[in-house]
Amino acid sequence: MLPIAVDAMGGDNAPDAIVAGARRAVEERGIPVVLVGRRDELGDVGDIDVIEASEVIAMDADPGSSVRTMKDSSLVRAAEAVRDGHASAMVSAGNTGATMASALLRTGRIKGVSRPAIATPIPGPTGEPTVLLDAGANAECRAEWLVQFAQMGAVFSKARFGIDRPRIGLLSIGEEAGKGSPLVKEAWALLDEVDWSAQGAEWIGNVEGRDLMADEADVVVTDGFTGNVALKTLEGAAKNIINALLQAFDSSDEAREGAAMLLPALAPLYERFNADSYGGAMLLGTKGVCIISHGSSKDVAMLNAISVASEMVNGDLVGKIAGAVNA
Amino acid sequence: MLPIAVDAMGGDNAPDAIVAGARRAVEERGIPVVLVGRRDELGDVGDIDVIEASEVIAMDADPGSSVRTMKDSSLVRAAEAVRDGHASAMVSAGNTGATMASALLRTGRIKGVSRPAIATPIPGPTGEPTVLLDAGANAECRAEWLVQFAQMGAVFSKARFGIDRPRIGLLSIGEEAGKGSPLVKEAWALLDEVDWSAQGAEWIGNVEGRDLMADEADVVVTDGFTGNVALKTLEGAAKNIINALLQAFDSSDEAREGAAMLLPALAPLYERFNADSYGGAMLLGTKGVCIISHGSSKDVAMLNAISVASEMVNGDLVGKIAGAVNA
Repeated sequence: MLPIAVDAMGGDNAPDAIVAGARRAVEERGIPVVLVGRRDELGDVGDIDVIEASEVIAMDADPGSSVRTMKDSSLVRAAEAVRDGHASAMVSAGNTGATMASALLRTGRIKGVSRPAIATPIPGPTGEPTVLLDAGANAECRAEWLVQFAQMGAVFSKARFGIDRPRIGLLSIGEEAGKGSPLVKEAWALLDEVDWSAQGAEWIGNVEGRDLMADEADVVVTDGFTGNVALKTLEGAAKNIINALLQAFDSSDEAREGAAMLLPALAPLYERFNADSYGGAMLLGTKGVCIISHGSSKDVAMLNAISVASEMVNGDLVGKIAGAVNA
Repeated sequence: MLPIAVDAMGGDNAPDAIVAGARRAVEERGIPVVLVGRRDELGDVGDIDVIEASEVIAMDADPGSSVRTMKDSSLVRAAEAVRDGHASAMVSAGNTGATMASALLRTGRIKGVSRPAIATPIPGPTGEPTVLLDAGANAECRAEWLVQFAQMGAVFSKARFGIDRPRIGLLSIGEEAGKGSPLVKEAWALLDEVDWSAQGAEWIGNVEGRDLMADEADVVVTDGFTGNVALKTLEGAAKNIINALLQAFDSSDEAREGAAMLLPALAPLYERFNADSYGGAMLLGTKGVCIISHGSSKDVAMLNAISVASEMVNGDLVGKIAGAVNA
């Protein structure tokens, strides 16, 4: 397998945590990796090759213009490594929009795909995660794109989580067919016409925000504005509730003792709800596997992201998406 | 004060929990109440007057057509009591859309208000709740309406939570001014032109989904589709995380013992995050105070809803909203 190109400069903890995660992927799992960035700043990279890139796109830079003007940035060079056949996939914890723009502009769209979308796994208390897309690539969407998001999401749900026959839902504000915005109503009608059993999937109609963390659907499609609001609302709610709990756990000697006794029961929950366990979001629809990790990723998140990238390359995710949208 | 009209038939626990909450409001807090519904089904209502209404609009009935055709329903009769000066406010835990439609069709809009909106208090771990609106009244919105939502939300935040100078945010997918859907960009420009200090409020620009439960803004405006998705996503996340915790707390003898020791520290959190503590959502923009309680409301939620209704009547919420939108 060609190596996974890892943007060594992207993310709040770059480059140290990125290099550490890359080394673990090579040393613990035998996954080939190439780091992209400023060689001088990377420290000890072990046996890993480095593609030199002198520029770094900041976390808050404008995605379009930075990708156009910073041609020697680690993100652009990582995408070019995939385009030119030097790498099989790219992984970045950097600027989400710039990661997407680099992949899109350098590797291009899969033939037949109107718009790539960001697919984010949402863990629930039981079952496999629900794949939400578009989680923010396209603030404005056409109804036909949502049908492709559903096709791509179903392929991803199978490849990533082994779901045999993914249940596809459309995010709306009521379960009945007539509920929602004009876009949702139009998308509902188009989604309802597709022969989903031929695609090995099942259409379950509208779902609501409360179903995202429940075991109701395997794939939930929406426009990138609504998807991003829902995702961030969910992350914020989880973070605020967990922080409040941790404060309560540390509020007295008695509470601390009780919390210690609960630790064995709480540890698996933490693992399940922790975003780091899932390696990040995936850009679906470009000619190359592209993983967008959380900006706060530490080494374990990078290790997981690189592992997922390698699995998706081996499982021919790109070929399968091409097959699904052109069926 | 004129009595608060309480829809005795609306909600999953009607009529028993509704009647119990109404009795507590009268007996414990001295708030005048009139119950609306099928007198024969209400049991012992104590000294409370009943407005007879023979029909009940089901929780899943179509709001528009049921309000038009079921003229002797408890919801329509409650709204008429407000319109005709027999009640000062209405409270229902029934069908949300039908509650809104009854209030809108019977009492009408405040002069100058384009569209009423549903305002929902979102509790966070610290500070006062953030008021989210529109939480679902208008699936499709015009940018000008969002400006009115902000004005109405600011009035409500002051009246309900005593916020001196509410911070107003616009829900988007990035904090920069240019981020978001076309509606958001247009609304941003309009909101940015308003002299908020003259309204005793402060405009803080875009906020994101993660800010809803944080202490970032006091009022967050959005269209009713996005607002409803965000609200239900948040409710679903909270419910799923809390259920997972409760299971963990009960998973072994040691866990149960630890949980018991944590109880004193967790009880205030439960109170803070529990929707019942806030009495429900408020319909803003109609000529009458109208509270839409959660369908699952028990007696304490109804008691709180009736108390809030009474406070809002005494504080002249309707008059203040009229003043703000016509300033």
